[in-house]
Order: sequence, then structure tokens, then C-alpha cells
Amino acid sequence: MDEAPRPAVSALTSMRATRWFTTTPVAEEQLRQVLEAGRWTGSARNRQPWRFVVVRSRAVRQQLATLGAYAGHLATAPVVIALGVEEHAGGEDAQFDAGRAAQNMMLAAHLQGLGNCPASFFPAENADRAGLLCGLTPPWRVRTAISIGHPAPTPAGTSAIPAGRLPLTDLVTEIPDQHH
Amino acid sequence: MDEAPRPAVSALTSMRATRWFTTTPVAEEQLRQVLEAGRWTGSARNRQPWRFVVVRSRAVRQQLATLGAYAGHLATAPVVIALGVEEHAGGEDAQFDAGRAAQNMMLAAHLQGLGNCPASFFPAENADRAGLLCGLTPPWRVRTAISIGHPAPTPAGTSAIPAGRLPLTDLVTEIPDQHH
Repeated sequence: MDEAPRPAVSALTSMRATRWFTTTPVAEEQLRQVLEAGRWTGSARNRQPWRFVVVRSRAVRQQLATLGAYAGHLATAPVVIALGVEEHAGGEDAQFDAGRAAQNMMLAAHLQGLGNCPASFFPAENADRAGLLCGLTPPWRVRTAISIGHPAPTPAGTSAIPAGRLPLTDLVTEIPDQHH
Repeated sequence: MDEAPRPAVSALTSMRATRWFTTTPVAEEQLRQVLEAGRWTGSARNRQPWRFVVVRSRAVRQQLATLGAYAGHLATAPVVIALGVEEHAGGEDAQFDAGRAAQNMMLAAHLQGLGNCPASFFPAENADRAGLLCGLTPPWRVRTAISIGHPAPTPAGTSAIPAGRLPLTDLVTEIPDQHH
């Protein structure tokens, strides 16, 4: 099933958020591969608690862009994938699985040379509004959308969220085996 | 930063849960690459709402294995990574980001030829107990752990959760641009 050579893990550690895009459209086949990566993601009891809404409409993207404090990139990306998540039971579990699918889709974009950035819709009324705009009704809830496009340089003077990470010594503890 | 050749997207769609492992240990460098993949995952406002607990202790793994209906593989895997997630505010957002980190770590295992499987701790009291076993206190909450090891064949007669996926036609809707 995995006929291509196995990539290095650096493909997974090198992805950074891209908030600026050129006007070049995303090829249909590239988008399809992104959606396939979402589709094949694992989930608890294989329930696949997600739906993907491909938003090309500029008018809808512009409205989505107003529904989160850091969602402006949704207006300027050539295509946006809104993520509907089934939240009627175990919302946190479903959001965990949705995060897995989002990561897989973002990596599929990254591996094809496309930039991407997730946006969160909040507070809850904004997530409700995003769901309406995307044509999804409960139990489907739209808290997140992903911008995808060909990366453009970040404009000068744009303030950025620091992109560093905590060192492993701060993140990791170990519970050793007493027998070793 | 990404010096290795870019892999095909098939590396992302080919991962399946592995619940059976050989007794071969996971090499330290392989485990480190898995943790680095978790560490470099993106998160909302780069808050990195996660901690990773590497559980080698067989006694602790055996107790964790009792804390979820499908968690038995935690007892038999050579190493388990328990995921502490910061839940004091916006639990669903943090779980979404934790799902992203989990997916990145599982893919890092997969790309190195290792099998992996996530387990969920539930109900809430079991997540509390998992946190205690892992030495984490609130706001850190342990709902999930990932088994990692060299894959072994699934024993005959083992019932499996169906591994198929819904077709894209069931998962995807489109909001086209009116101007095209």
C-alpha cells in the first residue's frame, strides 16, 4: 500500500504555519490528495467523526475570516477546508480525532509544497455561525478551518507568533522499567 | 530545514493501527525522533498544551491497560507515550491540538517502520487515574496514550474493528466560487 520510499521524519518536524498565499490556485489533484489524507486518518472505534467542506467562495471565506481572532488568512487563501466534527457525545474525544485528521491534511499539503494554516472559530456563537455558512447542522460543529495555498513571503512589519518550541527536557518525563 | 526528499502523500494514508508487537525494544534514537515530531507540532497560539510521559515500566503499562475498553495493547507494547493535555481552559481546543501532536508522533513511528496504536482512557475517573500513574496533576489531563513497537502479526481469531473508510463523496461538500 505504501509503495513510495519512506520519508525522513524531518518531513513531519519542518511544517510551519503559512498565513500568506499567492493567487495561484491549488490543483484539483493536490486538493484531492489532501482530502484523501483526511479520509484515511484513524479515529477512535473508526467512527470518522468528521466532514470536510471545501470552501472556494470568496464571499464565504471572507465571512469565515471574521469569526476568529486569528482567522484573517481564510479570506486570502485560494481554498479553505472547514472541518465539521461530530460533537453530540464525547466532544473532547471527537476533537482529538479531528486534530489527527487536520494534521494529516496539513502534512499532505506540506508534502506537496503547499502552505497551510489552521484557524479556530470562537466563541461558541462564532462556531455556530461557521457551521451555518458551511451548510452543516448539529451534531456537526465547525470549530476549525484550514487555509491551503502556494506560500507567499510574509509582508514586512507583520507581527508573528513566536514559532519556537519548548525543549524536550521540559516536555518529557520517563517512567523507567524497574527491571532494567 | 527539510533536507530529506519530500515523501509521497501515501506515507500519510497508509498508516493503520497496530495492536500487536514483538519483544524487540524501540531504539532510543527512534523514540527520540517520535518525541521530536510531537514537540514540533503546531498548536493554537503556539501554546504547546502537551506533555509526553515515556512509560517503560511494565507494571505501570499493565495498570494503564485496564483504564480503557480497548487499551489492552498498552500492556504488551515495549514503550508507551502517555499524553498530558492542558485542559484548564478550552478543553476541546487543547484536545484538538493534542490530536495533532499524537498524529505527528504516530506518523514518525510509522515512517521508521514501527507500529503504533492510540488508546483512550474513560470514563473521566480513569483519565484521573492515568494522570496519577503518569505523575501528572491538573491542569494536565491524560486521556490518551500511544503504544509503540515493532509490529507482530495479529493473532488468529482476533476480532478487529473494521478498518475501511467512508468514501470522499460521503465526507466532502463544496462551496464553489460564484465567479468561476
